[in-house]
Amino acid sequence: MHDRISDETELIQAYLAPLAAAGALGLADDAALVSVEPDSELVVSTDPIRAGVHFFPDDDPRDIAWKALAVNVSDLIAKGAVPIGYTMALALPEAPLKSWMKAFSAGLGAAQAAFGCELFGGDCDRADGPLSIAITAFGSVPRGRFVQRTTARAGDHVFITGTIGDAALGLKLRQRGDVYGAAVSPGHADALIQRYLRPAPNLKAIDIVRRFATAALDVSDGLIQDAARLARGAKSALVIPAAAVPLSAAALSVVESHPAAIQTVVSGGDDFEVLFAVAPETVPGMRAAAHACSLPVHLLGILAPGDGVILTGASGQPMALETTGYDHFRGT
Amino acid sequence: MHDRISDETELIQAYLAPLAAAGALGLADDAALVSVEPDSELVVSTDPIRAGVHFFPDDDPRDIAWKALAVNVSDLIAKGAVPIGYTMALALPEAPLKSWMKAFSAGLGAAQAAFGCELFGGDCDRADGPLSIAITAFGSVPRGRFVQRTTARAGDHVFITGTIGDAALGLKLRQRGDVYGAAVSPGHADALIQRYLRPAPNLKAIDIVRRFATAALDVSDGLIQDAARLARGAKSALVIPAAAVPLSAAALSVVESHPAAIQTVVSGGDDFEVLFAVAPETVPGMRAAAHACSLPVHLLGILAPGDGVILTGASGQPMALETTGYDHFRGT
Repeated sequence: MHDRISDETELIQAYLAPLAAAGALGLADDAALVSVEPDSELVVSTDPIRAGVHFFPDDDPRDIAWKALAVNVSDLIAKGAVPIGYTMALALPEAPLKSWMKAFSAGLGAAQAAFGCELFGGDCDRADGPLSIAITAFGSVPRGRFVQRTTARAGDHVFITGTIGDAALGLKLRQRGDVYGAAVSPGHADALIQRYLRPAPNLKAIDIVRRFATAALDVSDGLIQDAARLARGAKSALVIPAAAVPLSAAALSVVESHPAAIQTVVSGGDDFEVLFAVAPETVPGMRAAAHACSLPVHLLGILAPGDGVILTGASGQPMALETTGYDHFRGT
Repeated sequence: MHDRISDETELIQAYLAPLAAAGALGLADDAALVSVEPDSELVVSTDPIRAGVHFFPDDDPRDIAWKALAVNVSDLIAKGAVPIGYTMALALPEAPLKSWMKAFSAGLGAAQAAFGCELFGGDCDRADGPLSIAITAFGSVPRGRFVQRTTARAGDHVFITGTIGDAALGLKLRQRGDVYGAAVSPGHADALIQRYLRPAPNLKAIDIVRRFATAALDVSDGLIQDAARLARGAKSALVIPAAAVPLSAAALSVVESHPAAIQTVVSGGDDFEVLFAVAPETVPGMRAAAHACSLPVHLLGILAPGDGVILTGASGQPMALETTGYDHFRGT
């Protein structure tokens, strides 16, 4: 039960090779082959996660592995790309327990199955510092159909998939057991923490983004900050009524009992939903298509001449924000 | 002079965006586009480097950046792939000095120019632990022409490009100023240390590997260990006379004055040369082609029935090896 893995070959062959794509040659080569259809382009994204920053060292290894892949798949989806696979560089502070590695590879396998992609290669080092998982994900998009984040225009309607704030509230619960001292029912607490541990980017958004989005990005660093990126790219301003931010039942109960929690909701990040702009004339078609595939989409606001993003309260007054989102570099 | 970089946006826009490929959209998106010719396949490789393992924290940032890209390009070359570009995940223990980041990006720029590739995206985090640079490199190979490491056969001749052992001897010099107490002239010492600091995978090998290799890999973990991988893939044995291992003038002078240094030469790693097998009937053609493009190639031995790799001394006796090479995981 408490055996540790003895070398890199064992780690790769026993735990990772079963996850490998055909082009990865059983992970027994220095590189792997990715085939791209002739009428498609490859989309690449790199988003590493590290213990103490993006997850807790004692999180379930199934969840850590899932999150490592999910945060990268989220970037692909927001560009309209279908996931193909990924490479992974693992930096482990010590030789892992076999039981840990078994659970980690099971979590990766579950995420691969959920997101439709395979392992194309990687590297495992023992290194000082926190556990780090650096995944580079590949997806494919029909030639010329990659959706940028800077190509929306004033007048476009801005939508968000799913619900916002669950993961950020879940993180607070995971860190200290409460959110601003507010009472959270066990069922709601569990739902929020699960969103933090197992982000669930929605593959259904790929088709909607490809067909209708004038610009898109995933919300990972906080809704307000990511909305500001979309608005800046469109050289436009965006007013988001707080009431337009879609909340899960769990998040709604927290915000109702403690209104200041909206700050965490709109700036906490880790949502991994897609924020996208749609030209007004195609909004009805987009809504119908999203409804047809059961993808929840919510209107946040309309891009207008100007700049900046403002969150407004019930009477339309701008709300002061403590922070707009996460800076990877400052850590705040 | 001692200003530090204040946030991720400054780091990316001021220092990395000038290195970006067109498909990387100025590094202002979550993902990038890689175009692959319809008759080509994409080759991917991931090889991170970390302070304290692959370089010294006080190495010149130009050299650190160069090495981070070079070790990945080396994998592509050995597969017969032409480098296209790379993504990079930087984990920095503290906000870097602007002067450090300027030198680092200059080193990356020099390596990009030397190897013909561009930056397609990345991620910068501040994280506890040593400086880590995780690069995933992309190359292209004509469809069906990727060269594996396991496809040689008994009877094939095994060649190596360039010279072996320089970087490993350079590392010893960098660590403690001497190699086994042997006197090394300043000129030779500098040459060896430079090979450690600035590995120089040779793009000329791409065409030779594509046209003639039955199997190939780069030598990064030690010649004997990497030769054993080639031999194992061929279900064959390989006898390498120590005298057949090509040495630079600097390495030769060290080995002549201290014969035990051959241990470091054949197992030290960091060579980033290409080890490849050639069917006997195509050896003359390969030699002519290598000569025509000024690629130095040297015969190490011939794959024979059996298994394992043996290094032999002047009278043909097997030499005992202290270690066969580097295990990333055990660190020995």
